[in-house]
Amino acid sequence: MSKSENFIPYFLSHRNVTIALAEKVEKANYDFKPTETSMSAEKLVLHMVTSFYQFTAAATKQQPKQLHEEGSPFELGEVTKLYTDETLVLLKNMVDEDFKEIIDLTAFLGTKLPAEQVLRIALDHEINHKGNLFVYVRMMGHTDLPMFVQK
Amino acid sequence: MSKSENFIPYFLSHRNVTIALAEKVEKANYDFKPTETSMSAEKLVLHMVTSFYQFTAAATKQQPKQLHEEGSPFELGEVTKLYTDETLVLLKNMVDEDFKEIIDLTAFLGTKLPAEQVLRIALDHEINHKGNLFVYVRMMGHTDLPMFVQK
Repeated sequence: MSKSENFIPYFLSHRNVTIALAEKVEKANYDFKPTETSMSAEKLVLHMVTSFYQFTAAATKQQPKQLHEEGSPFELGEVTKLYTDETLVLLKNMVDEDFKEIIDLTAFLGTKLPAEQVLRIALDHEINHKGNLFVYVRMMGHTDLPMFVQK
Repeated sequence: MSKSENFIPYFLSHRNVTIALAEKVEKANYDFKPTETSMSAEKLVLHMVTSFYQFTAAATKQQPKQLHEEGSPFELGEVTKLYTDETLVLLKNMVDEDFKEIIDLTAFLGTKLPAEQVLRIALDHEINHKGNLFVYVRMMGHTDLPMFVQK
């Protein structure tokens, strides 16, 4: 099994949970934040899906596209799926050698790392913020929540 | 570098953040929960540190010790450090072959997995719940919070 074929189901085992949570956020709750200093639910979900896409673009040395316009109306669940699809396009094109490529993240993280590790950080970042999102969605009144990772 | 020498700093880059957050939880807030159906802050932190220790004990085919008594008074930060130390004892004793051992988690997760993957699940579980804990601690009034992973 290639590294890409190995990583994609692992990514989706978390991303599908992100999508399920994003779909539970009703329009009226897009601005919800647990405290004044927190990100809003909308900002949190957009931060998760754009970050992963940008990390993957960096790991594959490609320019990320602008997939949604700030301020335009959109469905959070739909935008999340759109970013997921574009992230999958990049991941599916990776061959095993690409995972060893050294990626210059000096401007972003102050370091250079192999692509494999960039994707590891992207996934840890997603899991962390998904952990935030679980609390948000529970605070919106939802109690029927998925496991943190899909089996 | 051995697999153990590789994994330990990665584990600590997340666990040290868990410890920093646990230390911010004041005694008066041990029972804090964002909603009625949430785990309390105390239960959440204990769940994180006991789970990781138990996953590691399973991955190393050892019996986990009982490191704290239910209902006895304790400092959350101290218990967290105690579990961290005992987890590190187990991790430090692992040789590269141990990471390939097949671990029977049938009773727990309905599957058998290599030890390396058991540790991966343990860390994802920690990051997820640390993401919950960030929201809890912010709701307690703390705004000076660490990054989700220590550099």
